[in-house]
Amino acid sequence: MDSYISPVELENAYRLINHGPTVLISAAHRGVENVMAAAWACALDFSPPRLTVVLDKTSRTRELVEGSSRFAIQVPTAAQLQLTRDLGTTSLVTEPCKLVDSGVELFYIDGYEAPFVAGCSAWLACEVIVEPHNQKTYDLFIAEVTGAWADRRVFQDGHWNFENAEPQWRSLHYIAGGQFYAIGEPLRAQAKESATAGA
Amino acid sequence: MDSYISPVELENAYRLINHGPTVLISAAHRGVENVMAAAWACALDFSPPRLTVVLDKTSRTRELVEGSSRFAIQVPTAAQLQLTRDLGTTSLVTEPCKLVDSGVELFYIDGYEAPFVAGCSAWLACEVIVEPHNQKTYDLFIAEVTGAWADRRVFQDGHWNFENAEPQWRSLHYIAGGQFYAIGEPLRAQAKESATAGA
Repeated sequence: MDSYISPVELENAYRLINHGPTVLISAAHRGVENVMAAAWACALDFSPPRLTVVLDKTSRTRELVEGSSRFAIQVPTAAQLQLTRDLGTTSLVTEPCKLVDSGVELFYIDGYEAPFVAGCSAWLACEVIVEPHNQKTYDLFIAEVTGAWADRRVFQDGHWNFENAEPQWRSLHYIAGGQFYAIGEPLRAQAKESATAGA
Repeated sequence: MDSYISPVELENAYRLINHGPTVLISAAHRGVENVMAAAWACALDFSPPRLTVVLDKTSRTRELVEGSSRFAIQVPTAAQLQLTRDLGTTSLVTEPCKLVDSGVELFYIDGYEAPFVAGCSAWLACEVIVEPHNQKTYDLFIAEVTGAWADRRVFQDGHWNFENAEPQWRSLHYIAGGQFYAIGEPLRAQAKESATAGA
């Protein structure tokens, strides 16, 4: 594991995806590993940290997730633009050498079943909370986050630091047809004196 | 309705939120209107277009959504940074003049029950698909998108055009503690010759 990778407190895990980045979803089952790109992943709860992800029935990754009940979500960087695109537009079903062809590098962390993608900025280990109706009707998977890590060069003390990191660390935000945006500049709103939680 | 607002084809509605912006959620029921900010909204399907949104049980907006089965999702702009922050940190429950104090301006579109927030870059009219288990257990709401619009100054021909619009039009991406990022610069990945759909 890269020496820049640091654990993130589970209560702050949502922050790794709160800004809506396109993510990579990885899983392994019975000797098969796969990685796909997905724009439809979203935080669901703070504590325990949970998230949702949409996995189409045609995807091989979904089979691996259903088989192992584990997956990893990771935040790819601008340096991984082409990798992210390639992993999102090729299928292991039709291209058995998808992973080799893409050049993706996987690694494992002790205690976690799913493979992680090297070179990303943040990683979330996830365990599926089985909800057959959601999975069948909406392709919607709910999972609990059981581990979180980030690269210290771009996420420190519970906050992203895109503005001071090299531009290659920016997260990717996919629209359609190969069109991505990188995350941009920081904006800080003022707290209201009377601010309360809720809405 | 502002003359720059144009309908977006429903099949392209997902593109309005695909890049993961923080959104404003508005609803009205029995004479009460409310708007809240939310980072946890996500596309769920292309056709029919569906999305998910997380609505905490303490939020007044949730009551209005449950009462009317309708809401609107809109994409606020960098010019609306403070408005977005204020709408996300004050509650109509404890601050009855929340909307007036925030300065938010609402408008209606014929045929749609929920109010829309003026000055945003994109709007999605939504109808709740009632899923009691998800709503109760996870605060998770699934909805179908029944109408979509965008401001032509920043979204044209089915694509965002942040790079050529004024910076005030950039979408907001919330982290935590008042820390937002604006969406950044465009990145374009190359299509693989053998690219297929799926993953």
